[in-house]
Amino acid sequence: MTPDDLRRHGHRLVDWVADYLEGVGDYPVASRSAPGDVRAALPPHPPTSPEPFDAVLDDVASVVLPGITHWQSPDFFAYFPANASGPSILGELLSAGLGVQGMLWATSPACTELETHVLDWVVDLLGLPDRFRSDGPGGGVIEDSASSATLVAVLAARHRAGGAAAMGEMVGYASAEAHSSVRKAFTVAGFRDDQLRVVDVDEHQALRLDHLRTLVEEDVAAGRRPFFACATVGTTGTMAVDPVRAVAELVVPHGTWVHVDAAMAGAAGVVPELRWVNDGLELVDSWCFDPHKWLFTNFDCDCLYVADRSALVEALSIVPEYLRNAASDAGDVIDYRDWQVPLGRRFRALKLWFVIRHYGAEGLRHHIGRHVELAQGFAARVEVDPRFELVRPAELSLVCFRAAAGDDESERIMHAVNASGRALLSHTRVDERFVIRASIGQTTTEQRHVDALWELLGAAADGRPIEPRLQPDGFPPGARG
Amino acid sequence: MTPDDLRRHGHRLVDWVADYLEGVGDYPVASRSAPGDVRAALPPHPPTSPEPFDAVLDDVASVVLPGITHWQSPDFFAYFPANASGPSILGELLSAGLGVQGMLWATSPACTELETHVLDWVVDLLGLPDRFRSDGPGGGVIEDSASSATLVAVLAARHRAGGAAAMGEMVGYASAEAHSSVRKAFTVAGFRDDQLRVVDVDEHQALRLDHLRTLVEEDVAAGRRPFFACATVGTTGTMAVDPVRAVAELVVPHGTWVHVDAAMAGAAGVVPELRWVNDGLELVDSWCFDPHKWLFTNFDCDCLYVADRSALVEALSIVPEYLRNAASDAGDVIDYRDWQVPLGRRFRALKLWFVIRHYGAEGLRHHIGRHVELAQGFAARVEVDPRFELVRPAELSLVCFRAAAGDDESERIMHAVNASGRALLSHTRVDERFVIRASIGQTTTEQRHVDALWELLGAAADGRPIEPRLQPDGFPPGARG
Repeated sequence: MTPDDLRRHGHRLVDWVADYLEGVGDYPVASRSAPGDVRAALPPHPPTSPEPFDAVLDDVASVVLPGITHWQSPDFFAYFPANASGPSILGELLSAGLGVQGMLWATSPACTELETHVLDWVVDLLGLPDRFRSDGPGGGVIEDSASSATLVAVLAARHRAGGAAAMGEMVGYASAEAHSSVRKAFTVAGFRDDQLRVVDVDEHQALRLDHLRTLVEEDVAAGRRPFFACATVGTTGTMAVDPVRAVAELVVPHGTWVHVDAAMAGAAGVVPELRWVNDGLELVDSWCFDPHKWLFTNFDCDCLYVADRSALVEALSIVPEYLRNAASDAGDVIDYRDWQVPLGRRFRALKLWFVIRHYGAEGLRHHIGRHVELAQGFAARVEVDPRFELVRPAELSLVCFRAAAGDDESERIMHAVNASGRALLSHTRVDERFVIRASIGQTTTEQRHVDALWELLGAAADGRPIEPRLQPDGFPPGARG
Repeated sequence: MTPDDLRRHGHRLVDWVADYLEGVGDYPVASRSAPGDVRAALPPHPPTSPEPFDAVLDDVASVVLPGITHWQSPDFFAYFPANASGPSILGELLSAGLGVQGMLWATSPACTELETHVLDWVVDLLGLPDRFRSDGPGGGVIEDSASSATLVAVLAARHRAGGAAAMGEMVGYASAEAHSSVRKAFTVAGFRDDQLRVVDVDEHQALRLDHLRTLVEEDVAAGRRPFFACATVGTTGTMAVDPVRAVAELVVPHGTWVHVDAAMAGAAGVVPELRWVNDGLELVDSWCFDPHKWLFTNFDCDCLYVADRSALVEALSIVPEYLRNAASDAGDVIDYRDWQVPLGRRFRALKLWFVIRHYGAEGLRHHIGRHVELAQGFAARVEVDPRFELVRPAELSLVCFRAAAGDDESERIMHAVNASGRALLSHTRVDERFVIRASIGQTTTEQRHVDALWELLGAAADGRPIEPRLQPDGFPPGARG
């Protein structure tokens, strides 16, 4: 593809994406695709000859789009926000266009230095403790996901506690509501299932400190080594917040690495009034949050911070001859390949830099604050409506509720809303009971979308008919012309 | 950013990227940035107020570009090709624009089904064995990198051999020239260093079968379990090819999982005459290659295939309530989160689909074949020139050579070429000796670029002066106006 072709097709695709984002709210939120539908529309073999780009883009509209669940819809309330934005999309485009590798400082110094710099900015932006800044022994790095951040935290903790040779007696702790990636990280790292202790949660779905204390005391008495504890700030199920400070005070005297998974809720720190989410972070070893969840940055972009980068680097550094270079040998630079599992890495700092500059701290504060207001307004309606029960206070962007009439009714209502295509919700279980989750944090979600969701839920609860939203023809508008 | 702003800024950025790629050959290939240069040019704190996009783009030109090593330059011969292309860049843009999550089939069916489908196409395209197709027990998946592919192969092998509880007696094998990610995968997975046996290489840098046999026999005799072996098709150092068939025949009777790391060389299979790179694959458990190295697809895009996906899924699947859904529960669909370490995933199949359709099988064959011709032509020149020695035959896209006058001279010549900014080479060591690597596989590298490299090497060897290539002003041309 010549540069002129790239210009021409690129302009068309930019228009297509802009049209898509402008019209995405007209689409049924969840795909109605059945298993195999998309594949059935694709030719069984790759083309022998080149195909025109326009033909590819036609297939995107006719084959791919019907198979998409529209995560960028203002009516998407499922899972987590995943709120992308224009500056983020353009940052990703630039990263792809430059096509550089950031595995070493030497392979493109700006790729490393911009990342270090922007992650220091984020310390300011969220009011994080200075221990996470790069000018001391700590620092930040972009991982693809909080799953990977948790894994490298476990690996650094394991290294600090004596490495693979000492694994047999190590034990770690996370609550029953911690993300499944904690269990996965332990599995990947080669621990037996019983080496991750599951700590009970309280009535707010937060880690129970008394149970953690009991488990740690039992383990220490039995000669086991409490090497890792994960506290969650914003559980995936219900946005519950573990008592980070108390967890750290309890386990740090045992030499335990404390990791805080703030993937869901960490972005709240841009609003000074919400900085209670940072309580206790000056005591912990690592912390992560996901700009690709709630900070207007498209996946993948998780920010991981460590108080002492040496454990991470020592746990993960392997230097073959073909990667040796003067700057690394001199110890003057950061090589982020030693902060992650893969060797290669994209220039992901660009999109986060673009987002922060586009919105500014004030803009981010405004939007995050607005999401919280919308969620709290929605929760207030749930609370006073006899048809529904609020499961826990909506402190941030997630509202957890259920039908007063019981689990079957909760499930029926959620499926009725989802089947209408007018909104998308997801669910979890709390104390074995079915709970509907409304996550309010999309880039373009406004009061009217939340109002519409409330109307839908009421109609579903009352058994009133809901007019479904149908797939529009020729979508996105103008993109076909 | 409104859709109209996205259109306007997006057009400008597309033009910028097209200008960049058109003019990238005028730039000194390696950045001349010193540690700290980029950071010194950035403000210490994030902006409070929003900044205009044009200001951001100005900083890309003035701050970021001087800190970039130009991996997309036709004069880039270092490391590996990393050859991006227009269709790939546009596929990445579309993925960012759609902003969907592919962790489950249910979270966007097209994201999963297009990936499965395109990976079946690649089986055709490269002439891979049918065991890797998705219509049997096997199938393909996109991982971020070959490092991650190796890790999940190790985890699947460990699971098949009894899981974490049986780890103590497991041993794995890889040659001394295998990629550092094999060692890293073993470390991550919790093995002791001595559980990865390092197999000697022969005079062609390929795994020595007799040494592997000795090691396996010793281990079996001692009651240890050979659970994993990695054979490399295209080592990073010298593009050496291990005897995959013989390795598999040797270890499979012991129940060993055989993984083939073809990250560097796998793409050669698009050319029927080069399908010797696939020899023995019908005997192995897993195989991966990197379209982000040598198939015109920007990082990240590694294709991993397994002969039996159940070991992978069983090793990595954890299903919390908030991810449960009807399609997954019914077992009708693939959930790729269970094929990888992270939970979240981008819609990476789009870029590979765009690339294959843009080039067609014929186009890919033409370009890969041309790279091999260029490399062989270059190697032929090295071979007959008394100033240089060819270290091994250039069968594919990498030429390994050294100065006849010894290591110091090899190193001096390479640094002289790199310092000129007119080309970029990297190095490795073979039998303790310094070896210059010229990797010939960039998207826009033509005969004239290889000729120019040869001239440069001659000038450096002879001690003739080389006029440096300087950073042009106002680059990329037209992008500032």
